[in-house]
Amino acid sequence: MVGPGDDAAVIKAEAGSLVATTDCLVEGTHFRLSWERNLPKGRHPEFWRSLGWKVMVINLSDLAAMGDVRSSWALVTVGLPAHLHHEEINWIHRGLMEASRRFHVSIAGGDTVRSKFLFLSVAMVGKLQGRAPRLRNGARIGDRVAVTGRLGDARAGLDLLQESSRGRQSWRRLLLNRFFFPSPRLREGRELGRLEGVTALMDMSDGLWRSLELLSESSHVGYHVEGERLPVSPTLIRWATERKTNPFAWAAAGGEDYELLFTYKPGVRARLWSRLAFTDIGQVVDASRGKRLLWKGKPFRSLPVFEHFS
Amino acid sequence: MVGPGDDAAVIKAEAGSLVATTDCLVEGTHFRLSWERNLPKGRHPEFWRSLGWKVMVINLSDLAAMGDVRSSWALVTVGLPAHLHHEEINWIHRGLMEASRRFHVSIAGGDTVRSKFLFLSVAMVGKLQGRAPRLRNGARIGDRVAVTGRLGDARAGLDLLQESSRGRQSWRRLLLNRFFFPSPRLREGRELGRLEGVTALMDMSDGLWRSLELLSESSHVGYHVEGERLPVSPTLIRWATERKTNPFAWAAAGGEDYELLFTYKPGVRARLWSRLAFTDIGQVVDASRGKRLLWKGKPFRSLPVFEHFS
Repeated sequence: MVGPGDDAAVIKAEAGSLVATTDCLVEGTHFRLSWERNLPKGRHPEFWRSLGWKVMVINLSDLAAMGDVRSSWALVTVGLPAHLHHEEINWIHRGLMEASRRFHVSIAGGDTVRSKFLFLSVAMVGKLQGRAPRLRNGARIGDRVAVTGRLGDARAGLDLLQESSRGRQSWRRLLLNRFFFPSPRLREGRELGRLEGVTALMDMSDGLWRSLELLSESSHVGYHVEGERLPVSPTLIRWATERKTNPFAWAAAGGEDYELLFTYKPGVRARLWSRLAFTDIGQVVDASRGKRLLWKGKPFRSLPVFEHFS
Repeated sequence: MVGPGDDAAVIKAEAGSLVATTDCLVEGTHFRLSWERNLPKGRHPEFWRSLGWKVMVINLSDLAAMGDVRSSWALVTVGLPAHLHHEEINWIHRGLMEASRRFHVSIAGGDTVRSKFLFLSVAMVGKLQGRAPRLRNGARIGDRVAVTGRLGDARAGLDLLQESSRGRQSWRRLLLNRFFFPSPRLREGRELGRLEGVTALMDMSDGLWRSLELLSESSHVGYHVEGERLPVSPTLIRWATERKTNPFAWAAAGGEDYELLFTYKPGVRARLWSRLAFTDIGQVVDASRGKRLLWKGKPFRSLPVFEHFS
């Protein structure tokens, strides 16, 4: 392998299917430099480390959503404004390296450019093992709808970041961490990629509600999902109680959890359970029966919209 | 192959070596939106088309600089400011498509994001044919130094763009075209990648002078290059005459020509000549004999510095 330094990197590849994705974080759209100021003292480096970490994770999450993907490598582009300090750049770099080591991605090459605003763009390529990729279009009527992990924490963390209150409670720290340092569901993607009867798979960068829309549209089906089944953390419940809001609404709409959404044939449930933790949230129905994400049988009173903000 | 639309693209790959690179164009660093205003009437779409074209070409040029590379595919990220018109976005897209068709690159996937500034980032992967890649570190004492094509035109085109004079002479058009729509030296890269005796190869995005520095540093050698041998176009001479400047100085320092710089053993010259057009410009010497890019035996009186401008 020829690493960074020549015109291009050289990577040895076996025959087979490659899986490739690209995703970026752009100042003003995906993050704001002002967030750093809202952090408690001593936690400012986390903001910068998070940028490097997260741009790797959002790409890894895309790969996990294709099934059993390994031997991944990445090309990293960073646009650096002149006002950034050497120290801040080092923290970003550290975040990139931490994620690449933790999730076994080799950084094959990259490009650093001067820019008026900060952006990080990553292209990532992995090797698809064995069977065909898991797509969004395989959901069939009668399949169960399920998700990994817990939903809504990252979105609550984002809300905390946008406030200037500097609470130091440990539950705040937990939510911030879920926003700053998400984990891609690589192990779960592998299991779901290997098991027969898993019919559709995607990640949920833009939140459950949006992802359900995309999956059902690709598969030409409807869905009935019960909001009260959504997996929420005790931390989110605590946060929501303080704000007198419904944590399940945040779980339904909040983005950036990087959990996986999938559908499977009911018959394989036992085998699935033995391989990974997940939560059943509803079922796939005929398109004519509609797309319903309900709270106790009725539409959620208000869903917090998840939008990038520019 | 799964194209854009799922979490990631799927690409069939044969066993062997992949060559991968990433390069971007960022508003304020690599281009300015104000350039559009300096164009003659009716030529404004070319500015936008050029952005799409060029971001593909700068990546293709990196691949060409590795030798015989084929079956390339790309992931494209575009950051779009809200003030851009639908029409302008279409022109950018058209430029991307034109380059991808012309140079047989398939666009496997991509990402469009809202951004305060316009940027285009491309990651490109190709299959290296047959032998080992051509690197920058293979130049040996006694080798000849050579370049493809003609140098300095693109840099003169950039200067024209930054002026507000709206001359319509055909030679102006030529120089602008060389800046807006460069061609990657893919065919030349293939020949140079196949021939024994070609010892080092790289592209010259940042100009000859800088590239000579990088190549000699990687190879731990010096060079003697005669400025009066540099290949310059009649158009560049005409442009330089009007400005009372030395066209060879622009050829020596000007960037963005995307020509190839290479070194080869003198014995293979005849075979090289039968395969591609190039110009001998000097020779590789021992590092202790220095790095000299001379004009009639003396240093150039002034080399126009090539810098991205932020």
